[in-house]
Amino acid sequence: MDMLWSGWGDPAKAAPLPDTVVGLLRDLLGVTPGESGPAHIGSIPAPDSPLTDKTRQALVDCLGDATHLRTDAETRIRHTRGKSTPDLLRIRAGEVDDIPAAVALPGSHDEVLALLRVCAEHGVSAVPFGGGTSVVGGLAPEAQRCFIALDLRRLDSLLALDEVSRTAVLQPGLRAPECEALLNEQGFTLGHFPQSYEWASIGGFAAARSSGQASAGYGRFDDMVLGLTVATPEGTLELGRAPRSAAGPDLRQLILGSEGALGVITSVTVRIRPVPQTKIYEGWRFSSFEAGALALRKLAQDGPLPTVLRLSDETETFIGLAQPDAIGGSDAPQAAGCMAIAGYEGTAEDTADRRARAREVLLACGGEFLGAEPGDRWAHGRYNAPYLRDALLDAGAFAETLETATFWSGLPALYDAVRQALTTTLTDAGTPPLVMCHISHVYENGASLYFTVVSAQGDDPVAHWAPVKRAANDAILLAGGTISHHHGVGTDHRDWYAREIGPVGVNILQAVKNEIDPSGVLNPGVLIPVR
Amino acid sequence: MDMLWSGWGDPAKAAPLPDTVVGLLRDLLGVTPGESGPAHIGSIPAPDSPLTDKTRQALVDCLGDATHLRTDAETRIRHTRGKSTPDLLRIRAGEVDDIPAAVALPGSHDEVLALLRVCAEHGVSAVPFGGGTSVVGGLAPEAQRCFIALDLRRLDSLLALDEVSRTAVLQPGLRAPECEALLNEQGFTLGHFPQSYEWASIGGFAAARSSGQASAGYGRFDDMVLGLTVATPEGTLELGRAPRSAAGPDLRQLILGSEGALGVITSVTVRIRPVPQTKIYEGWRFSSFEAGALALRKLAQDGPLPTVLRLSDETETFIGLAQPDAIGGSDAPQAAGCMAIAGYEGTAEDTADRRARAREVLLACGGEFLGAEPGDRWAHGRYNAPYLRDALLDAGAFAETLETATFWSGLPALYDAVRQALTTTLTDAGTPPLVMCHISHVYENGASLYFTVVSAQGDDPVAHWAPVKRAANDAILLAGGTISHHHGVGTDHRDWYAREIGPVGVNILQAVKNEIDPSGVLNPGVLIPVR
Repeated sequence: MDMLWSGWGDPAKAAPLPDTVVGLLRDLLGVTPGESGPAHIGSIPAPDSPLTDKTRQALVDCLGDATHLRTDAETRIRHTRGKSTPDLLRIRAGEVDDIPAAVALPGSHDEVLALLRVCAEHGVSAVPFGGGTSVVGGLAPEAQRCFIALDLRRLDSLLALDEVSRTAVLQPGLRAPECEALLNEQGFTLGHFPQSYEWASIGGFAAARSSGQASAGYGRFDDMVLGLTVATPEGTLELGRAPRSAAGPDLRQLILGSEGALGVITSVTVRIRPVPQTKIYEGWRFSSFEAGALALRKLAQDGPLPTVLRLSDETETFIGLAQPDAIGGSDAPQAAGCMAIAGYEGTAEDTADRRARAREVLLACGGEFLGAEPGDRWAHGRYNAPYLRDALLDAGAFAETLETATFWSGLPALYDAVRQALTTTLTDAGTPPLVMCHISHVYENGASLYFTVVSAQGDDPVAHWAPVKRAANDAILLAGGTISHHHGVGTDHRDWYAREIGPVGVNILQAVKNEIDPSGVLNPGVLIPVR
Repeated sequence: MDMLWSGWGDPAKAAPLPDTVVGLLRDLLGVTPGESGPAHIGSIPAPDSPLTDKTRQALVDCLGDATHLRTDAETRIRHTRGKSTPDLLRIRAGEVDDIPAAVALPGSHDEVLALLRVCAEHGVSAVPFGGGTSVVGGLAPEAQRCFIALDLRRLDSLLALDEVSRTAVLQPGLRAPECEALLNEQGFTLGHFPQSYEWASIGGFAAARSSGQASAGYGRFDDMVLGLTVATPEGTLELGRAPRSAAGPDLRQLILGSEGALGVITSVTVRIRPVPQTKIYEGWRFSSFEAGALALRKLAQDGPLPTVLRLSDETETFIGLAQPDAIGGSDAPQAAGCMAIAGYEGTAEDTADRRARAREVLLACGGEFLGAEPGDRWAHGRYNAPYLRDALLDAGAFAETLETATFWSGLPALYDAVRQALTTTLTDAGTPPLVMCHISHVYENGASLYFTVVSAQGDDPVAHWAPVKRAANDAILLAGGTISHHHGVGTDHRDWYAREIGPVGVNILQAVKNEIDPSGVLNPGVLIPVR
């Protein structure tokens, strides 16, 4: 099934906001019905594909079958940009200036290699496309020439599973749920469950350094990757002969996070684990974000570490976004404070042991145990926030998320700085926002902060948001945070990323790109500027 | 104190082999007194420093003080190559063809930057020098021009310690024991204890992706690194705003393992942990290497993971090298089988819990509990193997180590292949060896293998060993292993490293080097060929 072209996910799952929420938005934020809502995809005036017959034929020759090169308008519109709120607003408005010239569906590593060579020869760029879920402009190249989308959906196999080493070799176009199903059949799990889980692909997880909601237990996706095969215009790169090595720099970590700008990932060897016997998710309440953050830090530093560990701030807890399915319901949390979710997955013995010991830590830190109900509700609604955003957009609100991370000692100042930047700039622009935040990923030495912003849209929502986003990005860097903990760089964060790694860092990446992609085929303008 | 120029460590700790061992070597391996043993350092005919007055003055100008640029023969000899067995044999024979033109002792990041710029301008190369413990030719550049050693010993401070984030900022010339002492004063430990611990430096750990004997509990050094400051001829690179990030590739992992070829690391931000309350080391015996390896795999995959976990094969167990201090003693293990060491460090509660649960796993895998004595003996002798090597060389034997890693399912074949390559080539050369091995580092998905080879020296020990080492390297790659798990690449492994990462990988590194070191100042020929 294809994702909704104008929003998120399965069109059948879209649901309007409850009237109580619409009223709250109106009363609190001044939200009134704004943009007119999605047109039919067929009514969007897409330009004809600019590919020459010669180029088209050369691409088809790589693919062996003309049906694997699509140039129809609908397919190309469905591969136009990703799923950030500005992306949705623009596609809903029928803006298709970033439309690919064609969508190629390669069926093998060698076909990808051949396509990249043809692109280099014909002066065409290429944007690898997995689940299409980028929220940072990772699918919106700054192409000064036409580009094709390399949709990897045909590369969707589990190639190998090694029960002894507990590794699996996955193709990049495999979607996360299908991957889980294939692994589950053999008794294993990947344990990677980001909010984009239902639609995102293995290749995208690797290319964007994804981090899932169970990262405390299973690690980030980049922790899971043991091997990579990468197609570049200059040939194939194969990495990963051991879990860890001292044979030079870890080049896997150069490809992870390269967002298609340094190559197309055509297979990923990952760590797998036995399917957990038990899954328990529970709610805890803390008197303040600070008190809750201290509890999370204790667990991250001294253990035991739950499999899932997250903490909403006061506003997010009050709104109920900690449990998206509860928004507008009568049973939203009434008491003040901050909601935390702790989840335990594993063997019955291991989860019972960790749960008992974590419980002591959480109680000692002033946590109030809320039982399984908030945890189950979180688990049930864990992938639903993007649907909620669509409903908010439909109701005339603007809703977007952004995220960062830093070391524990810098976390309070980072939280304050980003919240203030969002609040001040949106208020000054006449649309005072609700700014919510949660800690979603914890490490011994630091944590991530994930912000959700809801406000009225303003007259031109995309233009209205741009300076706000810039102010938030500036605030993140000034407060010492990284420009992204798990969304990535894309084109949206590129300028701030350059400040984060400095000119020597940018020059290093540019040198790598020039070496393996001398004619600038790969995702131009993503991650690093077009030189 | 300076390390023994002709061997390892503190000259006062050198001890001859027990007569029983000398007899065993003679009877078993045909070892007879070989090379004549070390001359006095003062009798080595070192060439005068080839630096021009102009270059010398420019270097002194960077350092602010002429005493920080040393050109005397003894200092330069002490900075000639590292501590591989061929390195020792050559320096003991008075071979100083790789001698640096001078030894610079910079006192700050800015001085390192300035030195690199002067080197670039004057056509001089530079070899960063920490503890001088490389065993892979990391300090033996392929310089087609003169080079200086950048001895970082004056950069030996703990710059900052953040108790909340549990991080410390360390200078690269800080030696591991001094670092531990500084951290211990404030209640923390790095937990990094490689065999080179007593002499190696923080910068070297980072540059060479070191892995300590307690890696199961504390992680590898590259796991510990959160931030880096790097001086390059083209400027400064500063990395690490959060424990983990999705802001592009993890460039920290490009510097870790770069062995001075991509920059000089001038500060390292590391994860620190509370000093453990308890340390328990115990011995276990398994009937075979295979049975022991299965037990280690179970612990690595399903837990609980001890802090230290290692397993000697039958030969190493028989010889007693699992506990170097026991060699030649009357209480060497009499029973057949394989010795494992399991160590637990942490709070009293945590170590007791892990020990009890690990015990169940080890017993279920057929392990025989040997009590604390073998563990304590291992802990006591854990840094002594390099002294043993010196004594073996003095007795006329050849002794060297090499190591690799791969995934669990490939480990038995890798073990067989390397052992056979070493045994066959040395036997064919007329010097049948003892080949011993242990697993010293375990991961969920694989483990390392560490081989020790002892044989007679042959007429020209360096030339005698070269084809053996090549055969072992070939066998490692052919069996799917990585060319190094924790020793690094240097010049010794460079050609095999190139095969491991392939031409695209080599071109990527070469491109990075050309970008940040266009005139080839940094450790030429280390890691990547001189282009």
